[in-house]
Amino acid sequence: MSWFYPIFATETETAEPSLVLAGVLLSLVIIYFASKVGGEICSRINLPAVLGELVGGVVIGISALKFLVFPEGGMEATDSLIIQFLQSTANLTPGGTELVFESMSEVISVLAELGVIILLFEIGLESDLKELIRVGPSAAIVAVVGVVAPFVMGTAGLVFLFGLPVIPSVFAGAALTATSIGITAKVLAELGKLSSTEGQIIIGAAVLDDILGIIVLAVVGSLVKTGEVQVSQIIILIVSAGAFLIGTILIGRLISPFLVSLVNQMKTRGQVLVTGIIFAFVLAYVANIIQLEGILGAFAAGLVLAETEKRKELEEQIIPVADLFVPIFFVCVGARTDLGVLNPAIPSNREGLIIASFLIIVAIVGKVITGFTVWGKPEINKLAIGVGMVPRGEVGLVFAGVGSASGALSPATEAAIIVMVIATTFVAPPLLKAVFKDEPEKVIESEAN
Amino acid sequence: MSWFYPIFATETETAEPSLVLAGVLLSLVIIYFASKVGGEICSRINLPAVLGELVGGVVIGISALKFLVFPEGGMEATDSLIIQFLQSTANLTPGGTELVFESMSEVISVLAELGVIILLFEIGLESDLKELIRVGPSAAIVAVVGVVAPFVMGTAGLVFLFGLPVIPSVFAGAALTATSIGITAKVLAELGKLSSTEGQIIIGAAVLDDILGIIVLAVVGSLVKTGEVQVSQIIILIVSAGAFLIGTILIGRLISPFLVSLVNQMKTRGQVLVTGIIFAFVLAYVANIIQLEGILGAFAAGLVLAETEKRKELEEQIIPVADLFVPIFFVCVGARTDLGVLNPAIPSNREGLIIASFLIIVAIVGKVITGFTVWGKPEINKLAIGVGMVPRGEVGLVFAGVGSASGALSPATEAAIIVMVIATTFVAPPLLKAVFKDEPEKVIESEAN
Repeated sequence: MSWFYPIFATETETAEPSLVLAGVLLSLVIIYFASKVGGEICSRINLPAVLGELVGGVVIGISALKFLVFPEGGMEATDSLIIQFLQSTANLTPGGTELVFESMSEVISVLAELGVIILLFEIGLESDLKELIRVGPSAAIVAVVGVVAPFVMGTAGLVFLFGLPVIPSVFAGAALTATSIGITAKVLAELGKLSSTEGQIIIGAAVLDDILGIIVLAVVGSLVKTGEVQVSQIIILIVSAGAFLIGTILIGRLISPFLVSLVNQMKTRGQVLVTGIIFAFVLAYVANIIQLEGILGAFAAGLVLAETEKRKELEEQIIPVADLFVPIFFVCVGARTDLGVLNPAIPSNREGLIIASFLIIVAIVGKVITGFTVWGKPEINKLAIGVGMVPRGEVGLVFAGVGSASGALSPATEAAIIVMVIATTFVAPPLLKAVFKDEPEKVIESEAN
Repeated sequence: MSWFYPIFATETETAEPSLVLAGVLLSLVIIYFASKVGGEICSRINLPAVLGELVGGVVIGISALKFLVFPEGGMEATDSLIIQFLQSTANLTPGGTELVFESMSEVISVLAELGVIILLFEIGLESDLKELIRVGPSAAIVAVVGVVAPFVMGTAGLVFLFGLPVIPSVFAGAALTATSIGITAKVLAELGKLSSTEGQIIIGAAVLDDILGIIVLAVVGSLVKTGEVQVSQIIILIVSAGAFLIGTILIGRLISPFLVSLVNQMKTRGQVLVTGIIFAFVLAYVANIIQLEGILGAFAAGLVLAETEKRKELEEQIIPVADLFVPIFFVCVGARTDLGVLNPAIPSNREGLIIASFLIIVAIVGKVITGFTVWGKPEINKLAIGVGMVPRGEVGLVFAGVGSASGALSPATEAAIIVMVIATTFVAPPLLKAVFKDEPEKVIESEAN
């Protein structure tokens, strides 16, 4: 029995834990370095810092320096500069290399997932449930239009303009639907617009979008797999998603006074933060196992706790934690982005790039128009709402992955979806910053009226 | 290619990432719950909270409820209640179970290691390099006596009283040498005694002890493996340890003004914390690859940064991070503790328990006397210093593991070492609290003089 890692590397058969730790430490150092260099450069040229974290990730990732690569991309241990560095500094033997590489990548991936969970918990804490409910109808319209418009435009365009078969067109159309809540929320937070009406509509719509995206994925996935839509599965998904969001908020509001009084009786360090995190992780777990995304649970937890007297304390304490966890997520997103699909010198990429250009236009137009569906709020920045819905991300890439695995997508179409996700993800932060630019004046004007 | 985890569990061959995430979330929830329940109970009955975290770990670990078990203990996935819970709530298939169990355990183990690294960084930040240098001679004497006395007493006792062969006796004696800096430092911090003279002597001696322990392990390890002491290896280790501690502090003091001015020019969120953590992780990495422990590097980083103008800001921001990471370490230590070796109903345990009783006495006496080697400081709590050196831990268990793997230790002697480590680890926190009890009066008295 050994609680800790043995010091002599030769004693063990599985991945040498002290080398896994060394690899994780090195990966984190490089991730933090890339996030700070990228973030600082972007903030100096007046772009959102999160864009810099994404680009920093691209620079250290699979597309460029290959410090941080992941096994899923078909990369091997020897492709990772971190592993090569470990081999030359620590005594990592070739035999143990693959194991260390896999374990280390696993740990970094989970840390990235915890990063986006903590980000959404923080976003939830900074959101206002009452305001979200107030803008709910607007957010719902934005979400539905933002799913239907790109889906119809994309699918129809691919079938009629490009002559693609129906199934891959439906898949590509579906990949256009979901908004990446992480990137939008982070940019809004950086701009200080999270609690504005526009911000709350975007967040509300993005949350609904995430759920709609998962439902669309289930529909399309079962369509591809069985040739028909399994209505019962879809109904279960819709009911469980609705029950989850409404249920967590209702039950959460019932038990949050109990949590607060419990915390008030606790005497050990970190009682507020640890209790809040337990709550967030439990809801993230529940969301995860009912096939929703963990981030929805964390967001709901933040929303519920934002209504308690502990909001301010939690908000303050979550900041350093988020500062350490969240960059791991964005840098990993960048590091996993394979810009190879953008290289027009490779002939097989060209068809994909042409389809991608079309998808990008649909992806941007299909979301930007959603802002103009908001009625009765003349003072609102409608363009900003639409632009806020532009970044794709997680769900879009899941579509590409599932479609490719099921054989429904040709390599060109898959590449086109990935290019569309990359483009919308990287273009949205500067666009969003630009459309919010003259906001302060507007606020002053409307206050002066 | 897929950046994120696919939603359909059936699509992948390796450990299903969304299930690994679910397992990690569940493990963390249970770890935090155990740490808070244990910590709160202990703080109410006037025991250190960290003891509660250890006991909370024992309750959820291999010895009792088996929520949190680790593959190294010979446990299988089906032994873990968390895995069973995942099987019944998420659709975890039996085929993927082992992979999820291993990946999840790997992630939790690394988080625990990051926990103790962050703890030592925090301890370093709260320490005072000038005070450490001032008490350096006292700390050095305490450290050396605390290594030599238990080693000689333990080895001689086993050979002459118990008639054991020399090699296992040397091994068991060596296992008595090293202090667990984590537990002692945490208790001192809880008692607010970290920056007292006693606290700084204990921390300084524990750091030296950690290095001495690693050197002793190298000596004993090569003795067992090759039958002789490889002097060159030992010299390399001593030189590299010395060079590391002195080098990091000297170089660190040279570059820390540069780090501070860099941070002052940075504009993005978390610049102080992320820069500090990069520094800590780099030194932890260096310590790790030169066969020292990562925690020594993190401690040195904290010590260096404590001398800069950013100390206060860093200290404040590290608290929530430590609140989330550090309990993972202590709960995991408890969870991995197999109390089965304490069961006297199993005949093979009895010989081990008798040897263990002897080792425990030597372990406590051999360290408690070290406090009385401190000369010229009459106002000092000498008993507290000795008691502060009592908890064994990491290095002691590494001895048991290495000794057992090399065949030098009989099962009874190995069990005896483990029992000794358990006893000293769990007994030290309440003892330390007790001997520091009437401290405030003393301080007032000495101030009144």
